[in-house]
Amino acid sequence: MDKPLAISMGEPAGIGPDLILQLYENRAKNELPPFCLFGNAEFLQARAKRLGLGLNIASTSVAEAGKTFADALPVVSIAGLISDSPGKASALTGKVVIGAIEQAVAAVQTGTCRALVTAPIHKAALYHAGFKHPGHTEFLAYLCAKGSKERRPVMMLAHNDLRVIPVTIHTPIKDVPSQLTRASIVETVTAAHYDLRLRFGIGQPRIAVAGLNPHAGESGNIGSEETDIIGPAIDQLRYAGINVEGPFPADTLFYPRHWRRYDVIIAMYHDQALIPIKTVAFEEAVNVTLGLPIVRTSPDHGTAFELAGTGRGSTRSLLAAIRMADELTRGRD
Amino acid sequence: MDKPLAISMGEPAGIGPDLILQLYENRAKNELPPFCLFGNAEFLQARAKRLGLGLNIASTSVAEAGKTFADALPVVSIAGLISDSPGKASALTGKVVIGAIEQAVAAVQTGTCRALVTAPIHKAALYHAGFKHPGHTEFLAYLCAKGSKERRPVMMLAHNDLRVIPVTIHTPIKDVPSQLTRASIVETVTAAHYDLRLRFGIGQPRIAVAGLNPHAGESGNIGSEETDIIGPAIDQLRYAGINVEGPFPADTLFYPRHWRRYDVIIAMYHDQALIPIKTVAFEEAVNVTLGLPIVRTSPDHGTAFELAGTGRGSTRSLLAAIRMADELTRGRD
Repeated sequence: MDKPLAISMGEPAGIGPDLILQLYENRAKNELPPFCLFGNAEFLQARAKRLGLGLNIASTSVAEAGKTFADALPVVSIAGLISDSPGKASALTGKVVIGAIEQAVAAVQTGTCRALVTAPIHKAALYHAGFKHPGHTEFLAYLCAKGSKERRPVMMLAHNDLRVIPVTIHTPIKDVPSQLTRASIVETVTAAHYDLRLRFGIGQPRIAVAGLNPHAGESGNIGSEETDIIGPAIDQLRYAGINVEGPFPADTLFYPRHWRRYDVIIAMYHDQALIPIKTVAFEEAVNVTLGLPIVRTSPDHGTAFELAGTGRGSTRSLLAAIRMADELTRGRD
Repeated sequence: MDKPLAISMGEPAGIGPDLILQLYENRAKNELPPFCLFGNAEFLQARAKRLGLGLNIASTSVAEAGKTFADALPVVSIAGLISDSPGKASALTGKVVIGAIEQAVAAVQTGTCRALVTAPIHKAALYHAGFKHPGHTEFLAYLCAKGSKERRPVMMLAHNDLRVIPVTIHTPIKDVPSQLTRASIVETVTAAHYDLRLRFGIGQPRIAVAGLNPHAGESGNIGSEETDIIGPAIDQLRYAGINVEGPFPADTLFYPRHWRRYDVIIAMYHDQALIPIKTVAFEEAVNVTLGLPIVRTSPDHGTAFELAGTGRGSTRSLLAAIRMADELTRGRD
């Protein structure tokens, strides 16, 4: 039998815990693979009660999680006092949230769990506990590196056969042109190519690269990055044997007859990647981190404080994240 | 009976003429309103023959077009020798293409035709004939102004209830932050508000404004334009009584449950507006120019040289453009 997945609970004031509990309650209908939840058992019990869920929660070890899963939600409990206060982030919860992520990563790195699924965090609530990273993904890259040189994590959003990767992520638009270098494009495409082969089993991935400017610069008439940076990066990648094409005008690249020709679309900035996939996938896209030594997925939404504790949050993206983590690692160990 | 629409033929080496001829051939099925085509009759006859269409073409005056329409395609023929050479742009055709646009605009401005629908042009083929404008729309603004001060034309793309307007259009990304001013946003939103009331009959238009940066700047953490420029512009517009909200993160603004709350979405740059509407509408979006004294629509695609003369181009966007021009002016004169 496959080992369990590891799920980190995320921000307790947000909808992450709700969604995990709701999915578990309907585990048979959702055809959930066994997972081990890293969080705080007392808090989870209180949140389940608030949501009117009758499920059992079992504090357990990672090793026992797989056997427990059918009867009770297996929780590797991180000590700490967390009140069930939907929508009210507290600096006191940071230690448990960070501890849950650390232990979940360790469980995957040591091979006790197959892959990591993370529920959303709220950065501001973590600063008090010493969190110093630009984001969740960078923190995971730091943990995976264990002190050695970190690899560049690459954020991919996926929905069925549509996959997009932004080269720059949380970068202001005015800094995007200067941060866009031949090296950053080559590095991102190479990581995508490697992981699509290794993790997704795509023999020779077909990769499309978007331009930066309107009409992909119209041969230099509307901006020069396509001719100066993106084009040369594509040439270098093709020379290395990677099947990559572009730069294409971004506004017509997301016609189904265009994107279906490719296994992944490389975008130059955050919204160029996220607008089309969120428009197509509504709330079912999955965030997959490439370039890490472990498989990590997460839903494409945030903590949604206003919905926490109500049971009205959509479980679709988290369910899709769990399914993808499962599919990418099933039968592999 | 309503007056006819005016359609300009566009680039003869492109698919514009093909699509007009194909739509006319099936005018009953397409429920086409009567229109008058401004172009070159001999050329159109040759292209129709190449496409295997058995339609009649009648050189006529604008005044006779409405009566002719049921039996023969009424063409106000611009003199000039244009060969039927699909895909091969020629500098010799510029005079006819420009003349067709000029006469079509004049027919709408004088009230002989109701509204203008333009087929795509190929700018490079027009330079020889003295064309000096950044684009089709700017040329129309120039013609409409007749020597007096030009109004700022505003480009709106529409598909059913989804409407988007970019504040900057054919601007390289690196120049977008500096071109984005409080005045340019106020001017664009005001034009949108005015035309949505006047032309679309929307009493109190609901307007959403997107941010420029990822997550709409995250309160200044990812860029400052939202707090320095976009926010103050929105405040100024609300003070003027316009129902406008934002700035919103662009990546979740195109969830149907978000955009359906608004009559138009104002985007900060070309791809931020065009990626989502083209992704949603595939090839059925219509380009509507606001801020002009006349109603003008066009398909959202270009000349598609590779499809010219083949009959394989999609007529859907042009048909949608004709229908919208008709709807916006039906019963108005």
